[in-house]
Amino acid sequence: MDYAPELEIAQWLNTDMPITLQGLRGKVVVVHAFQMLCPGCVAHGLPQAAAVHAMFDARDVAVLGLHSVFEHHAVMTPQALEAFVHEYRHPFPIGIDRPDASGPLPRTMQAYGLRGTPSLLLIDRRGRLRLNHFGRIDDMRVGALVAQLVAEPGAVARAGMASGEATPAAGDVHARGAACDANGCVVSG
Amino acid sequence: MDYAPELEIAQWLNTDMPITLQGLRGKVVVVHAFQMLCPGCVAHGLPQAAAVHAMFDARDVAVLGLHSVFEHHAVMTPQALEAFVHEYRHPFPIGIDRPDASGPLPRTMQAYGLRGTPSLLLIDRRGRLRLNHFGRIDDMRVGALVAQLVAEPGAVARAGMASGEATPAAGDVHARGAACDANGCVVSG
Amino acid sequence: MDYAPELEIAQWLNTDMPITLQGLRGKVVVVHAFQMLCPGCVAHGLPQAAAVHAMFDARDVAVLGLHSVFEHHAVMTPQALEAFVHEYRHPFPIGIDRPDASGPLPRTMQAYGLRGTPSLLLIDRRGRLRLNHFGRIDDMRVGALVAQLVAEPGAVARAGMASGEATPAAGDVHARGAACDANGCVVSG
Amino acid sequence: MDYAPELEIAQWLNTDMPITLQGLRGKVVVVHAFQMLCPGCVAHGLPQAAAVHAMFDARDVAVLGLHSVFEHHAVMTPQALEAFVHEYRHPFPIGIDRPDASGPLPRTMQAYGLRGTPSLLLIDRRGRLRLNHFGRIDDMRVGALVAQLVAEPGAVARAGMASGEATPAAGDVHARGAACDANGCVVSG
Repeated sequence: MDYAPELEIAQWLNTDMPITLQGLRGKVVVVHAFQMLCPGCVAHGLPQAAAVHAMFDARDVAVLGLHSVFEHHAVMTPQALEAFVHEYRHPFPIGIDRPDASGPLPRTMQAYGLRGTPSLLLIDRRGRLRLNHFGRIDDMRVGALVAQLVAEPGAVARAGMASGEATPAAGDVHARGAACDANGCVVSG
Repeated sequence: MDYAPELEIAQWLNTDMPITLQGLRGKVVVVHAFQMLCPGCVAHGLPQAAAVHAMFDARDVAVLGLHSVFEHHAVMTPQALEAFVHEYRHPFPIGIDRPDASGPLPRTMQAYGLRGTPSLLLIDRRGRLRLNHFGRIDDMRVGALVAQLVAEPGAVARAGMASGEATPAAGDVHARGAACDANGCVVSG
Repeated sequence: MDYAPELEIAQWLNTDMPITLQGLRGKVVVVHAFQMLCPGCVAHGLPQAAAVHAMFDARDVAVLGLHSVFEHHAVMTPQALEAFVHEYRHPFPIGIDRPDASGPLPRTMQAYGLRGTPSLLLIDRRGRLRLNHFGRIDDMRVGALVAQLVAEPGAVARAGMASGEATPAAGDVHARGAACDANGCVVSG
Repeated sequence: MDYAPELEIAQWLNTDMPITLQGLRGKVVVVHAFQMLCPGCVAHGLPQAAAVHAMFDARDVAVLGLHSVFEHHAVMTPQALEAFVHEYRHPFPIGIDRPDASGPLPRTMQAYGLRGTPSLLLIDRRGRLRLNHFGRIDDMRVGALVAQLVAEPGAVARAGMASGEATPAAGDVHARGAACDANGCVVSG
């Protein structure tokens, strides 16, 4: 299985530092490819990405938006995207897919062979592309797919944790990944 | 960590054979405890259980309903439950929690210390209780929690599969558990 | 146009006094016919009836539930309905359609020729049946249909108001019927 | 009660002819004021306006969008709006509120004293402003408010219909305004 192609990003929003897949190695990476004027992205894809961002532990899962403009280039500009992100308060880093002088499809979109937007990409801890889904996908399935990848070996060593350790030491089901909220979600030990 | 108490069931619906947790050892067991006159169960819990039933591979995940009547006993009878299940077309086995002559709480409800309905119980492949959640819980989280347990070791041996094997041999993310639907959605490497 | 047949009710819930269409003459009457084990009634019809009850002025619109049991008679008993209404907190009067010894259909259901549940009946201020709709119907349409009937002549005289007056004296659009909530819904004069 | 101020529109979309309130006299006019980057407008207000457009008879009700840009002027341009309307397929005429050189608020927004977007304006058959609502408003209420105005006198004469006639001649509840769909739904008397 090949490594996922590196993202080609012209500009980042919501982050002070450029982000690379290489730099996220050891984490599961969830990439939501969208266009700000794509109704399905606005209504379902972006809120779903925000829910993944809120639910999973940032030490295990990185959520990225990818603005892959392939139509209406004149109006879906970086400045317009900034206003969009400001109004919708999307909380995760968003990269602008680098335009390609030779045609309407931006470069990352080409590299991944995206069929359109919304598209969901899942990249495992080892950097391999494991899902490339075009269109709507329900929340339960996304939760399951991400958690499955979180549970695989390949995590980068953390303090007090052996590299590659894949199962939680304690018995609770939310030791990693899908932690429950403050209201409970009780677990016996 | 203790084993989950065995279910105490007076009568089963939607199954020809009585079901026991012991007999499901090796699978993840999802138990949705409900009452047919509980609004949150009808609107959210039971449809969610049906979605888990539809999404996960039955070789990995067993979904059960548990009718734990602790109020309105005179009207939430087995006959009434049968009509309810018929009208709502719930697709998974449903056990009637055995009444206890000494009080309003049925026996399985007591054994698990359920706070009410809806309650979601998650039992891992080894038979241990890993989640006991009272109240509403969102679909993404349920998908993630179930998938996390599916990914743990403990599966019973199947033809062509070594006992305890926990990670898929092939590269696609839905090798086990959360398979995508007929529309596709997977890229293997 | 004929008058709507009088309701034949075996027992009332949520009201101390029996209710008749005759007694409601002068008001628009909204009757939601349901069965407590009918999924579409529980999920859509009854909440919609509660919304009508909350939105329109009780001096103009009376909302009634009608429990028209035509299947599963043995379990959809008055006692079961009481438990159901208690748990779901339906706020409007509910009449139990009188069973008919000669067959499964209760009497009001027969008189109105209901095709099943949910059914929505709209009766105008003069007592005439104006809508008999089987199945789901969206909220905007229900709001419009009820408001249209509210605006027709036929109101019973109230203190300070001439009998039959059909248009509000003041200029605001919510003078009758669909009053806005406390948060505003501003109107210029 | 004063007449509603005339709309000041820089450019129209989805119509070949400029539209004026004056020209719509005799109809109820529903104006949804929005910005294309306003989340509440995109998720609720514009779909609601489309539902009003689909449900009511065009001879009684005119639905208009009003793009009242008061922030992010540089990116919510006419060209951007055209792309937005193309992607979302909004079916009704949309006017661009005329910018004012003296400040960020466009002129129609000033004339009506709009507090922001989304705002819903309802203008009666005689041209008077009857509702100026800021924020979300539920579908049932909108249906009721529009139907109430439809039922008022003031319609322009149509062939075979006396000017000012306000009540339907026939008995069915959808004689005007909220006609039911092809599936039926009406009982005449």
